[in-house]
Amino acid sequence: MLHPDLEALAVLLGEWQGVGRGGFPTIDDFEYREETRFGHLGKPYLTYSQSTWRLPAGEVVHGEVGFWRPQPGGRVELVVAHPSGVVEVGEGTVRAGHIELASTTVAGTGSAKEVTEIRRVVDVSEDTLRYRLEMAAVGQSLGFHLEAELYRT
Amino acid sequence: MLHPDLEALAVLLGEWQGVGRGGFPTIDDFEYREETRFGHLGKPYLTYSQSTWRLPAGEVVHGEVGFWRPQPGGRVELVVAHPSGVVEVGEGTVRAGHIELASTTVAGTGSAKEVTEIRRVVDVSEDTLRYRLEMAAVGQSLGFHLEAELYRT
Repeated sequence: MLHPDLEALAVLLGEWQGVGRGGFPTIDDFEYREETRFGHLGKPYLTYSQSTWRLPAGEVVHGEVGFWRPQPGGRVELVVAHPSGVVEVGEGTVRAGHIELASTTVAGTGSAKEVTEIRRVVDVSEDTLRYRLEMAAVGQSLGFHLEAELYRT
Repeated sequence: MLHPDLEALAVLLGEWQGVGRGGFPTIDDFEYREETRFGHLGKPYLTYSQSTWRLPAGEVVHGEVGFWRPQPGGRVELVVAHPSGVVEVGEGTVRAGHIELASTTVAGTGSAKEVTEIRRVVDVSEDTLRYRLEMAAVGQSLGFHLEAELYRT
């Protein structure tokens, strides 16, 4: 049974697929296919896993995992582990399917590229999920990194 | 195909089930059932997901997710997101199925209980995986938190 605290985030629940594009001043622009799943275990958080594959070739690009934690007053907390050796703690708000999160901590392993800030905006309208992710990394200030449009499967 | 860098961590690959016990100065001792999965995507990291259920009742206790990243010279990096609102970056070594990791960063969301250090020791011998996890948290110094013995399924 869905935990009652999850009401504001319940629009995320399910499996999503779609296409996105990425870029950053230090890398070439790229397009990707994405599969993302939000689940729950009856507890007051959503499980989150995302996988992306480069288009058109199809090799694995990324695959972050974590948890989305609703808080009182329309607040949301996010914890994510990235296969690039980065962890992210985000805090923000959810209102009517619109979620905004800004990192409060981004840290990495010794071999990871330095990421210093991540911001996410997610909009869910019925069976469409759009997100935009900005980051500051490797000496570059906060700017566009990813955006995608996903459909509920 | 398994990425060649994963050789030293390949003993972890697969699905594991077993029973563990937990404790900490601030909580009652407890026992749990665990299911853990290490997978790979052809990239130089292992995917990791762990779920635990309290015994004997069976409710969900925990469910961390993340990535294990082998490095040159028998080093290992770990990034984990915890549903309790905590992220963990660990670094350590692997040698002949024996892995030791100590956190270099532990951070949490505003509502998370404060965890300041996590240490993990994992031993894999054929189809048995034993681990012990120590943590420092909520003002308590580093000490026993979890240990379990899992079998490859």
